[in-house]
Amino acid sequence: MIKVCIIGSGNVAHHLTLAFQAADQIEIAAVYSRSGEKIQGVDSMVITDLEDLPMADVYIISVSDSAIADIASKLPFSDRLVVHTSGSVGIDAITEQNRAGVFYPLQTFSKNKTVDLSDVPICIEALSEHDYKLLETVGRAISGVVQRIDSKKRRALHLAAVFVSNFTNRMYGIGEQICQQHNISFDLLKPLIQQTADKILALSPTQAQTGPAKRRDQATIDAHLALLNDEQKKIYQIMTQSIQNG
Amino acid sequence: MIKVCIIGSGNVAHHLTLAFQAADQIEIAAVYSRSGEKIQGVDSMVITDLEDLPMADVYIISVSDSAIADIASKLPFSDRLVVHTSGSVGIDAITEQNRAGVFYPLQTFSKNKTVDLSDVPICIEALSEHDYKLLETVGRAISGVVQRIDSKKRRALHLAAVFVSNFTNRMYGIGEQICQQHNISFDLLKPLIQQTADKILALSPTQAQTGPAKRRDQATIDAHLALLNDEQKKIYQIMTQSIQNG
Repeated sequence: MIKVCIIGSGNVAHHLTLAFQAADQIEIAAVYSRSGEKIQGVDSMVITDLEDLPMADVYIISVSDSAIADIASKLPFSDRLVVHTSGSVGIDAITEQNRAGVFYPLQTFSKNKTVDLSDVPICIEALSEHDYKLLETVGRAISGVVQRIDSKKRRALHLAAVFVSNFTNRMYGIGEQICQQHNISFDLLKPLIQQTADKILALSPTQAQTGPAKRRDQATIDAHLALLNDEQKKIYQIMTQSIQNG
Repeated sequence: MIKVCIIGSGNVAHHLTLAFQAADQIEIAAVYSRSGEKIQGVDSMVITDLEDLPMADVYIISVSDSAIADIASKLPFSDRLVVHTSGSVGIDAITEQNRAGVFYPLQTFSKNKTVDLSDVPICIEALSEHDYKLLETVGRAISGVVQRIDSKKRRALHLAAVFVSNFTNRMYGIGEQICQQHNISFDLLKPLIQQTADKILALSPTQAQTGPAKRRDQATIDAHLALLNDEQKKIYQIMTQSIQNG
């Protein structure tokens, strides 16, 4: 049994804790939450003072990027394995007093939507092979995809994730705006959204690209631009250009 | 049995023909293809001269937007139901010599990827209730979602589809570029792409929005911008702005 402490109460902490609670090989020794708020469905001890953190094999800091180094420096122990879960913060944010690592689940988490972590890539980094193996076991307890990724590559991966997830979701949002402006149900677009994501499992994005930009159908492009507000128009133009540049 | 002729051999014609061939209530009377090319798996007669079009209940013109009016004007008959499959062309592209309609499947089609049409919205427009009912029956033969949408709304819907599908696919493409630049497998992003699309079934795009732009995490945004080329940087900035404007 590997003992884990979760430090944090945001979306990532929330979903990791639920996954660990369901994993046979993991025992959650404690969850630290500044507010003392319990995670629904999790029975583990909640503590509000870092001084109360019990002994564990791994301490997982899952807080906002800017708070990681501060929390790490306040841990009341040394030479234990302490990892963070951020895509964009280097492994060196964990102070040298402890053994540093990273445990980054490459996924988008919202509190109100459960996520099956079993196919979510867990990107792992550690300073020693011993710690790497330990993190690999923790990762395998909740996911079938555990990958060694260093801080530099992880930062690039996180950047790519912003495009394929955050910016994609914003495209959904603009689609919804346009539907609302014209009294059309956004639900009509949902099968298309699913199919667009599914296509990428079988085709490369270049092969899968369709639409007026790809066809260089200027008449349709001009008709579309006439229907858009300034912000939407700028996005339409730059994405059309990007598709045509290839 | 409703007799249908398909006029065209592009991606939409291809997938519609396959779906009609599998539908009990539909008989494909002929497929017109300028090149005479057969669609793999379809047994129907292929003709290369519009003059050879046999008698049918519906003629479905599925060609590039700019060619619709020209093909419609060359049909060697009158007073038959003739529809096109375009999202952005008005119903009036079908000349008055025939009864005009639109049969627009709201989906992204690529030749090498089969599409299950059963949940694809078929957006229908006709000039008479009789023709509308006929198109509705044809639509229901291949899809569970048949919707009456006029030319103006269809154009807006098509525009929204460009954002949620064509531009989203381009975001996948930029994600792949970044992975290639840093020697990372694009496969790592595929579960995230699926989850981002799945979230939209349960949450609105506004609720589902996450990421550094949403959190106004300027340190991460600046670090990301430093890793991008000029085109990627412009897209990153405008999408970040758009997310923050809400």
